[in-house]
Amino acid sequence: MKILDGKKISQDIKDELKMLVSNRLKKGLKKPHLAAIIVGNDGASLTYVGSKVKACDYVGYDSTLIKLEESITEEFLLEKINNLNNNPHIDGFIVQLPLPRGIDEQKILLAIDPYKDVDGFHPTNFGRMSLEMESFIPATPYGIIELLDRYEIETSGKDCVVIGRSNIVGRPISILLSQKSKKGNATVTLAHSKTKNLKSITKNADIIISALGIPGFLKSDMVKKGVVIIDVGITRVPDQSSSKGYVIKGDVDYQNVLEKSSAITPVPGGVGPMTISMLLKNTFLACQRKD
Amino acid sequence: MKILDGKKISQDIKDELKMLVSNRLKKGLKKPHLAAIIVGNDGASLTYVGSKVKACDYVGYDSTLIKLEESITEEFLLEKINNLNNNPHIDGFIVQLPLPRGIDEQKILLAIDPYKDVDGFHPTNFGRMSLEMESFIPATPYGIIELLDRYEIETSGKDCVVIGRSNIVGRPISILLSQKSKKGNATVTLAHSKTKNLKSITKNADIIISALGIPGFLKSDMVKKGVVIIDVGITRVPDQSSSKGYVIKGDVDYQNVLEKSSAITPVPGGVGPMTISMLLKNTFLACQRKD
Repeated sequence: MKILDGKKISQDIKDELKMLVSNRLKKGLKKPHLAAIIVGNDGASLTYVGSKVKACDYVGYDSTLIKLEESITEEFLLEKINNLNNNPHIDGFIVQLPLPRGIDEQKILLAIDPYKDVDGFHPTNFGRMSLEMESFIPATPYGIIELLDRYEIETSGKDCVVIGRSNIVGRPISILLSQKSKKGNATVTLAHSKTKNLKSITKNADIIISALGIPGFLKSDMVKKGVVIIDVGITRVPDQSSSKGYVIKGDVDYQNVLEKSSAITPVPGGVGPMTISMLLKNTFLACQRKD
Repeated sequence: MKILDGKKISQDIKDELKMLVSNRLKKGLKKPHLAAIIVGNDGASLTYVGSKVKACDYVGYDSTLIKLEESITEEFLLEKINNLNNNPHIDGFIVQLPLPRGIDEQKILLAIDPYKDVDGFHPTNFGRMSLEMESFIPATPYGIIELLDRYEIETSGKDCVVIGRSNIVGRPISILLSQKSKKGNATVTLAHSKTKNLKSITKNADIIISALGIPGFLKSDMVKKGVVIIDVGITRVPDQSSSKGYVIKGDVDYQNVLEKSSAITPVPGGVGPMTISMLLKNTFLACQRKD
């Protein structure tokens, strides 16, 4: 059984990007520049954005953090986005979700220039990805593909079950794994809240990607021996013994499923750390595109 | 067992559109106007485009057919597309595929204004569809959803297998059927050329959509009793006894599968006729959007 160490792979990718940036500088090319907009004071969001800025520093990117008051109007935010779209120094930017009520998230995402949309949430990028054209792939599914690739896990011809049909994880990873591509060619079943007999489906799967958000949901009796498990669940569970007052739990009943699996991602330290690295990779690609 | 009569439903939709056009005219609104570009002299393509023009006449749309020589350049075609994009009289248009060698199909499809892309092949439309936003849905998957809807076939919670992962049928119908929508909420497995043990997958399916293009591929022993079958295969098989020299065959071994199915589309007369009606519906929506 193999632990898929997302923390290590994420670090490897960051070190590769650091080298690529240093090569750019030697050639007299500009540093990549990522901007992030955050609205309001949500604790988790501030932490995520903070990690992204820190990661930019590490790999040698410029970064710009734009912190806006919870009380801003949609028009004001659209104006900020327009500024970033038109700012030639910014290669890519993200708008940290969720946004405060009263601001239409879809309208905001649609306003981002697809060429700067390093989160890959704009429909033009989503469509390009689905049609196997060059695009920005959303960080979480991109990170899953990268993990499978670096650990040389075969996907071609494998029966794969994706649990959860969100636009940022389940839907895109179900598309990517079934495409004619390097880590594709799997026979993918997309399961969700309306799925009946989920257990009979997961029991036959060679690979299970769980993006459900229910701690410990996937039990040992739901999987077959030798299964590959990618756990995308990240839920904060209150825990007094932790200094933070909570611990992070995945969708998988880890200790018990571990024994039956041939490869598994831990939580934390699996898919989570990969997302920031893939965001940095998208930003690098956005920068390179403009050379 | 129920035969899903695509010919009849297609006619119903055309009659509904005819009525809607007549209502528009009474209100002093313009007729919808569909344009089609065809390059070269491929027999099947000419037949398809001819049927589309005829259908426009029937429902009362204006139509413009632009026939171009096989020898034209890509630049010339791009210019024609640009003209249609900028022509306010044209609500929607299609470029009949396949295009002659030497013309980059992807480049052509990307040049079409997404708001006039009534085939729904542009990545922006594909992305919008995937993300459950308003868009033009490609005619064949749209026709399948419409057939399931008009025959009140339940999809929610059903195990559905789509065979074939093309960008115009398999991929989009697999997405649509698994969305949180009226004819969605199915648990969809997308099977393709790399799928192993296809029979064990189809045998458990409540609904099978076959878009493979291999005549008579889906046999009776591959399906369970009560299955719903949507046959998207349209293959010309040489047949001397036919005046045309060929007959149209679907993917399904119809006579034998018929007895086991609770509902099934014939070929011809199933999904095929639906596609033109859905193209007309998209054109109507494109026109209405501009009111």
